Amino acid sequence: MRRLGKQEIEDIAVGAALLGTGGGGDPYIGKLMALQAIEEYGPIQLLSVDEIDDEAVVVPSGMMGAPTVMIEKVPNGEEAIAAFQTLEQYLGKKIFATMPIEAGGINSLLPLALAARLGLPVVDVDGMGRAFPELQMVTFYLDGISATPLVIADEKGNHSVLNTVNNMWAERIARAATIQMGGSVMMAIYPMVGKQLKESGIHHILKLEEDIGRIIREAKGTNANPIAEVLSLVGGFELFKGKVVDINRKTESGFARGTAHIQGFDLYHDQTLEIKFQNEHLLAKTPDQLLCVTPDLIAILDSETGLPITTEGLKYGARCVVIGIPCHPKWRTAKGIETCGPAYFGYDVDYVPVENLVKEGAQTK
Amino acid sequence: MRRLGKQEIEDIAVGAALLGTGGGGDPYIGKLMALQAIEEYGPIQLLSVDEIDDEAVVVPSGMMGAPTVMIEKVPNGEEAIAAFQTLEQYLGKKIFATMPIEAGGINSLLPLALAARLGLPVVDVDGMGRAFPELQMVTFYLDGISATPLVIADEKGNHSVLNTVNNMWAERIARAATIQMGGSVMMAIYPMVGKQLKESGIHHILKLEEDIGRIIREAKGTNANPIAEVLSLVGGFELFKGKVVDINRKTESGFARGTAHIQGFDLYHDQTLEIKFQNEHLLAKTPDQLLCVTPDLIAILDSETGLPITTEGLKYGARCVVIGIPCHPKWRTAKGIETCGPAYFGYDVDYVPVENLVKEGAQTK
Repeated sequence: MRRLGKQEIEDIAVGAALLGTGGGGDPYIGKLMALQAIEEYGPIQLLSVDEIDDEAVVVPSGMMGAPTVMIEKVPNGEEAIAAFQTLEQYLGKKIFATMPIEAGGINSLLPLALAARLGLPVVDVDGMGRAFPELQMVTFYLDGISATPLVIADEKGNHSVLNTVNNMWAERIARAATIQMGGSVMMAIYPMVGKQLKESGIHHILKLEEDIGRIIREAKGTNANPIAEVLSLVGGFELFKGKVVDINRKTESGFARGTAHIQGFDLYHDQTLEIKFQNEHLLAKTPDQLLCVTPDLIAILDSETGLPITTEGLKYGARCVVIGIPCHPKWRTAKGIETCGPAYFGYDVDYVPVENLVKEGAQTK
Repeated sequence: MRRLGKQEIEDIAVGAALLGTGGGGDPYIGKLMALQAIEEYGPIQLLSVDEIDDEAVVVPSGMMGAPTVMIEKVPNGEEAIAAFQTLEQYLGKKIFATMPIEAGGINSLLPLALAARLGLPVVDVDGMGRAFPELQMVTFYLDGISATPLVIADEKGNHSVLNTVNNMWAERIARAATIQMGGSVMMAIYPMVGKQLKESGIHHILKLEEDIGRIIREAKGTNANPIAEVLSLVGGFELFKGKVVDINRKTESGFARGTAHIQGFDLYHDQTLEIKFQNEHLLAKTPDQLLCVTPDLIAILDSETGLPITTEGLKYGARCVVIGIPCHPKWRTAKGIETCGPAYFGYDVDYVPVENLVKEGAQTK
């Protein structure tokens, strides 16, 4: 057991935004909410998965919707409590702890804010090891765990308890309701017990986020290269370096979808990188070559500070380094690729692990 | 207390389709489901509102969606039971009886089928005295009663419990979920106690439906004029007589919307009637004159048999009589007209009671 204070929250926010690969919501909002909750209610208890009883009920909490909407419709904290308590009442069981469903700016930090307010522990685990845009895109789904009963709640006081025959239906019905409820809602989803988390979750994700954030923070004002250090920590690769020259972004079907173009510098001069996103960055390619594709991670970092840039924060002229990180091995199985691979999102490329793409790229140079 | 057997079901189906003003779902499907349930489980107990305890919990059940979808996606009966039992569990209270939410082909008969299967009584009351397309369009809403908690359930096994801050939000969120769930769902909605029903419901609606159906049935093969007898029973007016020459119908936003044109006969030769509908018939006019508009009732009857024709059953060449019936006085209040009047549906006319429009029409002839 550890306690998370303000410095840990600051670091986690940065690491979560990096693993959030452009999505998962604005880290600034999530950070403010978690910091304020700690200010009012004291530090948060963080448990590793091994510290949880096999029968203890754990419920992930987070936001669903378009990150572009979330930055204009900031949650007030009551929605998350309403969703959580409604699910607890519906289950008729005491919920022991909460956890993030994904690694991503707001969705790594909202469970911390909720935990502080309700006096619950947070478990150091998630279901993606990154961020993904849809509800069924979690390791729990790969392992046959139901997303429902789930609760979504909006800031007006509306809430809905959903029970579906499978997780694709949960995504479909909840997404339609979310759009009506204003484009973003808070949710309590995938109720599980400790045993399921131990087998199916991605462990130590908050620790990894915190480590990434600390590296980037500690490099500030020194000669250290934060990007190189992060790549070394996560086993990732520099894919591209350049300046954002074009962003095409729209909010449709409840998602932030679009394309960004980055004009190359240095090694990459005379090249243009295209990045496609649906909340998260999903594909990075030059006209000649695929560089990285979902479920592997594509993050865009500020080339000076190493700080991650979200899709909604991406601006014309931003100087950035694009990195690729191998996803968790669960995503590289046949069902993993079927669930979150390029074909699911309509991209006409086969999934190739980022480390192989990087090797091929080096050979063709 | 009365018991409803097969003959009563047959008559109620006809009367319900007439008061359903083109909507409320296909009476044939609802009738078959109710007849089959009686066959298996025996006659249904019908209670008048006065026979209900003030504290007894009563929950209307019915279908939500586009009638054009319902005729292709016939409910199997399990959806209604799932919706009802999920709501009972959520309320944590025993439900004493069910009732129709509206008068309309399928929605008057589905509660009878459910009651037979669950061994519950049905209360002789509804919330419209006709059919309307949206959830907040009930006298219960006018009297401040909440539509939620409500449950919607589909034939696949998905269900959703909804709690909203008002009934407009219930309509909006449930409609979006219904579209995702295949365009029609079963619902359990507006949980009430006996006292609320006594004050806010429209009493003796099933009795009225049965009387209408019996008149039309008994006129068959005799010289009696069933349409004249029905008009005398309900205090209605003949508005038009003719042949359907044009129907424009589409399923959009979860509703069956469109326009029908009827070419006049006899008294009405050289005139064309236009009828606009959204599930239900909402407006009837000639190029010169408004004849009847929501919340008053517009029904289309087969000119030979007097049998009502639903919007999805309306065919080119059908010979018909269009009648208008004054709505319940609750709909003629300021809040009633705001809720279901022409302006709500986007028609640029003021509400004028059908009896006044008929009087004006007679004067201009």
